[in-house]
Amino acid sequence: MSATEMNPAPVVIGVDVGGTKIAVGAVTRTGEMVQAGRYPMDRSTQQTSLTSIQVALDDFLSSWPHAAPLALGFGVVGRTDPAAGIWVRSMNIPISESVDMTARFGAPYGLRAAVDNDVHAATLAELHWGAGREARDFVYLNVGTGTATGIVTNGALVRGAGNHAGEFGHTFTGVAPDVPCPCGRCGCLEPVASGGGLIERARELLPAYPDSPLHVAEQQGQLNAHAIFAQADQGDPLATRLADDMVNALGIALANLINLLDPQAIVVGGGVWADGWLLPRVQRIVQATALAGALSDLESIAPSSLDPDHVGLLGAAILAWEVVAERE
Amino acid sequence: MSATEMNPAPVVIGVDVGGTKIAVGAVTRTGEMVQAGRYPMDRSTQQTSLTSIQVALDDFLSSWPHAAPLALGFGVVGRTDPAAGIWVRSMNIPISESVDMTARFGAPYGLRAAVDNDVHAATLAELHWGAGREARDFVYLNVGTGTATGIVTNGALVRGAGNHAGEFGHTFTGVAPDVPCPCGRCGCLEPVASGGGLIERARELLPAYPDSPLHVAEQQGQLNAHAIFAQADQGDPLATRLADDMVNALGIALANLINLLDPQAIVVGGGVWADGWLLPRVQRIVQATALAGALSDLESIAPSSLDPDHVGLLGAAILAWEVVAERE
Repeated sequence: MSATEMNPAPVVIGVDVGGTKIAVGAVTRTGEMVQAGRYPMDRSTQQTSLTSIQVALDDFLSSWPHAAPLALGFGVVGRTDPAAGIWVRSMNIPISESVDMTARFGAPYGLRAAVDNDVHAATLAELHWGAGREARDFVYLNVGTGTATGIVTNGALVRGAGNHAGEFGHTFTGVAPDVPCPCGRCGCLEPVASGGGLIERARELLPAYPDSPLHVAEQQGQLNAHAIFAQADQGDPLATRLADDMVNALGIALANLINLLDPQAIVVGGGVWADGWLLPRVQRIVQATALAGALSDLESIAPSSLDPDHVGLLGAAILAWEVVAERE
Repeated sequence: MSATEMNPAPVVIGVDVGGTKIAVGAVTRTGEMVQAGRYPMDRSTQQTSLTSIQVALDDFLSSWPHAAPLALGFGVVGRTDPAAGIWVRSMNIPISESVDMTARFGAPYGLRAAVDNDVHAATLAELHWGAGREARDFVYLNVGTGTATGIVTNGALVRGAGNHAGEFGHTFTGVAPDVPCPCGRCGCLEPVASGGGLIERARELLPAYPDSPLHVAEQQGQLNAHAIFAQADQGDPLATRLADDMVNALGIALANLINLLDPQAIVVGGGVWADGWLLPRVQRIVQATALAGALSDLESIAPSSLDPDHVGLLGAAILAWEVVAERE
């Protein structure tokens, strides 16, 4: 038995609640992931969703061999009230009645439970164990199914007056101003510059581009951001239109944000960056359009140094460590 | 002799350095302006500018009847390095060689001197003695000759990585995208939505509108934002175009900012708001375009409760009080 096993460091439990899976992990105060597990999510109803989380947590804790953890932290989708520890509501996972996370999940173990949305959680992971080790002012920009940011100023996460801060996806940029957004407005960033928006927009435009190779991708179930970027490189007019709008909208919105906040770093995360196509193109727009002063302070626009499979879990664990710190 | 005069509270000296005048005041830790004076600024050269400041300060302090102040604080235009106490450079007041404010102005009095730009200073005044008494997250939006913001998150001024934060005037909104900005780009907010920009744009467009009553205003030296708003109310096409672009650009940029930062309040300051024309129109655009969540948290878009003649001075005094707090 190693020294660590004999005298293990205290841990909290982080729970990353996604639409298809639940990740649970035990994390030390220095960000070491001691043990982690993945569990299925049945999001048919609010009840099945909460039961899935309970089952995952119970299973993980029943096999946890060390001293009891100090707190629980949950990163979830939708609206949360972190100060009160409440998951207020969510569309993607159907939460219509608000959930007191300590009462529902912590109480059986005698533990307090913290909660915040997944982007705030990922940003906290960056703050404590990623970009934040170097920068007191940075922005975490997630482009996956949607587009969202976590903002850090003066070394602290910006939650805003009601925990709504970071809705970068609803920036109006003037690019594709007539494209409707699920929020009810037109011209938002998200429908033009997210993975989900890109696919939806491609589907709407495909009938007008009968020769586009994206028809084949669609038939093969392969219509995604990477297929669109690849076809843009081949000169397909539809893919080029979609990709150009995305690059321009993201570049403009990011330049606006950089001028406003003067960050030291932009950390990018989310699946849409994965193939490396998007980043240099967005960097070029930002370099060409942001102000010289802010650009001189911006050291990098670069992918996170954290493991994308773990960033949500680590962020959920930070939420729990914040609860522990409050108590101390 | 009153009790206050016999045993006065400690003060710092705030200096609000403008292009045409210099305001100097003694301010207590609770924001009471004990004594204030106004002095002329000769900004012919860097040397005459610095001498003007020195003369103002010497005169004010020679007539100060109480115990020596604890520190000096300067609100200036242009670029500053608050951490180092340096006025780096400025165009409007010609500062081309950086000025160490403690060495130049504090040392003769044995005092440390702090410095920051005028919008950061005004925002600090709001934070300590205005909107910040109620809100930990707010934005100070100044629309005068230019357009700039001071951002407060988590109860602290956002300076950014290199004190460049707040350049809201260079937000690209898609309104009047071809209008050039002195920054070298096109489509920035400032040339469309500031007092100075409005006048300049009116002058450029006047030849294309030979019947506009704004020709008369120009001849009478009265071409300003208020004249343009008044003529827009009368249906003049040029004034309407200018005023509509301003309202739309400000509304869009502000909605983007509100979605991003989720502030509790927007505090407006600067001469362009003074006649009351602009505010309800911008409020209407924001209400129609910002996200419901952020709007539910935004309690007001309203003028500052602070005296506009004193806000710069009070902010400069806060900079000095920050230096005093560091030492304690």
